[in-house]
Amino acid sequence: MRYLTAKLAQQIDEELMNSVGAFSLDQLMELAGLACAQALATAYKKETHPRVLVCCGPGNQGGDGLVAARHLGMFGYKPTLYMPKPGSKDIYKRLQKQCDNMAISTLPPSDTTADLEQALLSTDVILDAIFGFSFKPPVRAPFDAVLPLLTASKKPIVSVDIPSGWDVEAGNASGVGLNPDVLISLTAPKEGVRAFRGRHFLGGRFVPRALEERFQLNLPQYHGFDQIVELKSEDLQGSAQRL
Amino acid sequence: MRYLTAKLAQQIDEELMNSVGAFSLDQLMELAGLACAQALATAYKKETHPRVLVCCGPGNQGGDGLVAARHLGMFGYKPTLYMPKPGSKDIYKRLQKQCDNMAISTLPPSDTTADLEQALLSTDVILDAIFGFSFKPPVRAPFDAVLPLLTASKKPIVSVDIPSGWDVEAGNASGVGLNPDVLISLTAPKEGVRAFRGRHFLGGRFVPRALEERFQLNLPQYHGFDQIVELKSEDLQGSAQRL
Repeated sequence: MRYLTAKLAQQIDEELMNSVGAFSLDQLMELAGLACAQALATAYKKETHPRVLVCCGPGNQGGDGLVAARHLGMFGYKPTLYMPKPGSKDIYKRLQKQCDNMAISTLPPSDTTADLEQALLSTDVILDAIFGFSFKPPVRAPFDAVLPLLTASKKPIVSVDIPSGWDVEAGNASGVGLNPDVLISLTAPKEGVRAFRGRHFLGGRFVPRALEERFQLNLPQYHGFDQIVELKSEDLQGSAQRL
Repeated sequence: MRYLTAKLAQQIDEELMNSVGAFSLDQLMELAGLACAQALATAYKKETHPRVLVCCGPGNQGGDGLVAARHLGMFGYKPTLYMPKPGSKDIYKRLQKQCDNMAISTLPPSDTTADLEQALLSTDVILDAIFGFSFKPPVRAPFDAVLPLLTASKKPIVSVDIPSGWDVEAGNASGVGLNPDVLISLTAPKEGVRAFRGRHFLGGRFVPRALEERFQLNLPQYHGFDQIVELKSEDLQGSAQRL
């Protein structure tokens, strides 16, 4: 299995959505967000962890979080959205509206973290969809205050694609990033998460074989019609040996 | 469970996608097509039924079929597309392109059914995505020649939403429609399929609770994070008693 640099992740994303790949962002985000929701639901059952705080950044990663929140609502979880800096793109607003229609509550916009601190007290698990593969350090406001609070809450964290605060390639060398219990990599894992040792899922089952081969992704086999696959130590060791 | 008239199905579709519902067609079609592929994969395993002939009409039903074909390809089936009258909408063309990128083959356009007859000889199961809930009889060319050939092939048929040729409300009273072995209803079953007695799945797990309640859909419970649920005789009898 190949670990992607930030540049390669960007390139694959572009190829999927250019006139050749022909995917729309709506499609890929829907499948990615569904996979995130399913990974969280696999790791944390709604009977024990019903209250999910879905933390969304302003970009496409936040969009994945919004899709995941909606699906978690369909699955019977009680998601709450935290978007300290909501995205401005049309798709982001539509995804927010879809969550509103599901009666998913959103923490009010605020210049302080008081509401976040309060919400964390009644949270069972955090879905971290703040920064994605286009993140470049340092962590800027308001997120520089948010990440330490998420960590301090000691609630289990499920991160999407790259734990927030980690460099996409260097990982958590700076130490300011989250330390998630579960990671759901999308399309293929990123360089920065080689050292990640928690439960690791892969989602984004939409890469055509030809593209997978051209980029030598060596993706693991998904089972049946599943949209996620849990990576086992063989997958991870195998990739380490090959590289 | 409520069976939908053609008008009500149309209304729910519109409400999901208007400015209030905020869903894009890309999103709903992706989830619907995924559910269709998963229903087929539940009923017919790829080990015994790898070769799926996906028959697509020119409208949104055909689009669901194209999405399903792509996912079936991801699952390891060998789908072949049959589109005697391909759709002209941009989304339809993009979905076709995505199938091309998956190396899914398409029967050549033709004025005769010779290629279809040939293809049926090497088909294990048919996915019928020809007509949807906006179909009104009679069946017109070229499909008036296609449906009898599909039936005559004696291959198992999985129909999407409403078996092709059936009136959305009156069912197969005319007798010209397909007789599928499996049906996957989307959002909620339609009036015309009350008499259907094969394996019956429901997909399209995207209806917000408020909308479900307003239209009194009484949808069955999906399990866990599944995107399809098989309807049992209790579901079906219950709905008959209530109505």
